Amino acid sequence: MSGIDDLPVRDELRGKSPYGAPQLDVPVRLNTNENPYPLPDELVTDIARRVTEAARNLNRYPDRDAVELRTALAAYLTRTAGHRVETAGVWAANGSNEILQQLLQTFGGPGRTAIGFDPSYSMHALIARGTGTGWVSGPRREDFTIDVAAATAEIARLRPHVVFVCSPNNPTGTAVAADTVLALYEAAQAARERGALVVIDEAYGEFSHQPSLLPLIAGRPRLVLSRTMSKAFGAAGLRLGYLAADPAVVDAVQLVRLPYHLSAVTQATALAALDHTATLLGYVEQLKAERDRLVTELRAIGCPVTDSDANFVQFGIPTALTGRWGDPAADSHGMWRAILDHGVLVRDNGVPGWLRVSAGTPAENDAFLDAVRAVLKENE
Amino acid sequence: MSGIDDLPVRDELRGKSPYGAPQLDVPVRLNTNENPYPLPDELVTDIARRVTEAARNLNRYPDRDAVELRTALAAYLTRTAGHRVETAGVWAANGSNEILQQLLQTFGGPGRTAIGFDPSYSMHALIARGTGTGWVSGPRREDFTIDVAAATAEIARLRPHVVFVCSPNNPTGTAVAADTVLALYEAAQAARERGALVVIDEAYGEFSHQPSLLPLIAGRPRLVLSRTMSKAFGAAGLRLGYLAADPAVVDAVQLVRLPYHLSAVTQATALAALDHTATLLGYVEQLKAERDRLVTELRAIGCPVTDSDANFVQFGIPTALTGRWGDPAADSHGMWRAILDHGVLVRDNGVPGWLRVSAGTPAENDAFLDAVRAVLKENE
Repeated sequence: MSGIDDLPVRDELRGKSPYGAPQLDVPVRLNTNENPYPLPDELVTDIARRVTEAARNLNRYPDRDAVELRTALAAYLTRTAGHRVETAGVWAANGSNEILQQLLQTFGGPGRTAIGFDPSYSMHALIARGTGTGWVSGPRREDFTIDVAAATAEIARLRPHVVFVCSPNNPTGTAVAADTVLALYEAAQAARERGALVVIDEAYGEFSHQPSLLPLIAGRPRLVLSRTMSKAFGAAGLRLGYLAADPAVVDAVQLVRLPYHLSAVTQATALAALDHTATLLGYVEQLKAERDRLVTELRAIGCPVTDSDANFVQFGIPTALTGRWGDPAADSHGMWRAILDHGVLVRDNGVPGWLRVSAGTPAENDAFLDAVRAVLKENE
Repeated sequence: MSGIDDLPVRDELRGKSPYGAPQLDVPVRLNTNENPYPLPDELVTDIARRVTEAARNLNRYPDRDAVELRTALAAYLTRTAGHRVETAGVWAANGSNEILQQLLQTFGGPGRTAIGFDPSYSMHALIARGTGTGWVSGPRREDFTIDVAAATAEIARLRPHVVFVCSPNNPTGTAVAADTVLALYEAAQAARERGALVVIDEAYGEFSHQPSLLPLIAGRPRLVLSRTMSKAFGAAGLRLGYLAADPAVVDAVQLVRLPYHLSAVTQATALAALDHTATLLGYVEQLKAERDRLVTELRAIGCPVTDSDANFVQFGIPTALTGRWGDPAADSHGMWRAILDHGVLVRDNGVPGWLRVSAGTPAENDAFLDAVRAVLKENE
């Protein structure tokens, strides 16, 4: 019987574990920021119709350039994100993870460095590792906002090839202001002769209180906006991520994209979902209201909460339990376990003192809030 | 207006072109080794049914480990490829390209080297480049078979971390004998303390005159068999590739695979196709007969042809035009153009003196053979 240790895997992978939230069978799962609303029946019918059409020609390779889908995505962004985007400035892949991987293969890779500001979406660092890109974890303030002076100084010192900015930030929830992004972009361009790529990961963009950062790409050829249909479109199972940027960036990722990477059934399903944008964005409005309610009620309970622009909320140990706002020494994993004992699965992202809860249906959110109150009561 | 040259792309990508066969609108397309038979109606109905079920839960992430699909693939291999395979020894991804990319990210990458024996599937070298893996093009004989002595000597000298063997080989068509694979495997293990990964790319395995090389993985923890549903299952549009190997290899690729890489609709569609294996393998038998007919008729016309175990045939300039078997100096691109002028698109893979034609329907193959005869007549 052989094991990984007997195989010639890369040294930096030895002893590592695969990424992924624990998948536990509990009544209320609020751990992976999924959209709690199943697709409406009319959309399911449309998906079946479009996939049936695609299946008839499944013996042929799919459209390698996914032109119809990219055109629909460009129209969606133009309509909702405050900036006119053309098909040539949009690219799609199997989840925004594959988008980010393609960007790092093109602009990062061996001998190059990327920076992100932690805590943030942990896949940024993992995809960097997977593509041989050096990774540096940049600073945030104690309140999880980006300190522009400290961040730009770090960029000037490090001279990274790729800069990640997650807005709204996962797992902390807060959106990044446009002027912060612009300051990081300018610093990144100044640090290297050919400039650096700045990637705004806007996976939760549709849930934000502030407008999309998309308009910033105008006149900035090295600024890329990454998006996904997993959250706002309620289609985590579809795996459809996309980017918007100068068309030259789209041309560049062609050099590393696997040919025919996006299946005909994925393209057909995504097109069907885009036909139902209005309905799906209606669910987003409901989730935003629930998200705001979670923030309000958690604060009323006595939990520290970071401002949220996403479909999830980062919260800390209730002050009654710790006596200190956001106490990093507080036992957040114990809190995670205690909430789980009440049938609600939230996420421990490894930020000391903090946990993350996805906004679910009103009933799921009530169950979560009841669980937190019960844990408090048990520890009185 | 900015272009790629203004972007900080990696140096080794500058001036390169994206991979992909020219897509031209001609009556008969025999250039990408697609299966010419559309999926049967019953399968299309089953796909719609399964995708409808999956779409109802599309708001949830897909099964990250694709267990049901991997179990079905393991059963298919066990039934058809002469060796019992368990779910834990099978892994699936978006096309065998993604399988190969994951293998190179795990076992290749910066500071490591892979070897293949050219001419072969050109994506092996391109995916190596995309993952920062060094690439060495190993030798073949003039008749395109692998010279075991020369190949093992090159492996001993180079000490590669990954060895690619494509069987049946694309674009030349011929399967590799089991004892050749074993000799390469032994040489690769002997060359490095921890051994090297040997990847058998059996994308066209179902079309071969010889049995699958799958049984060779028994007792060889560093031997991997890569397969696809694009060809034998007539599902190029589905993008479903898979590997079979020691379960430790599957564990190892978990360290680099993007989480939730395989969409719920892809998993559902692949499962539907696997339910129709008998029908689809019936088409494979028809294609094998047509492939054999192409070989026979091309030779009767006077074309040199390499033995084919695939759903395509590599052929050279007719002897009447060149006066020499497989004349490398012959103008194969001119021949490609001349055949295209008769409405048939074949593939110029860049092997001097040779072209590749996919086995199509009997009518498509007739059109191709007529085109070759017409080109001959025009040049009499």
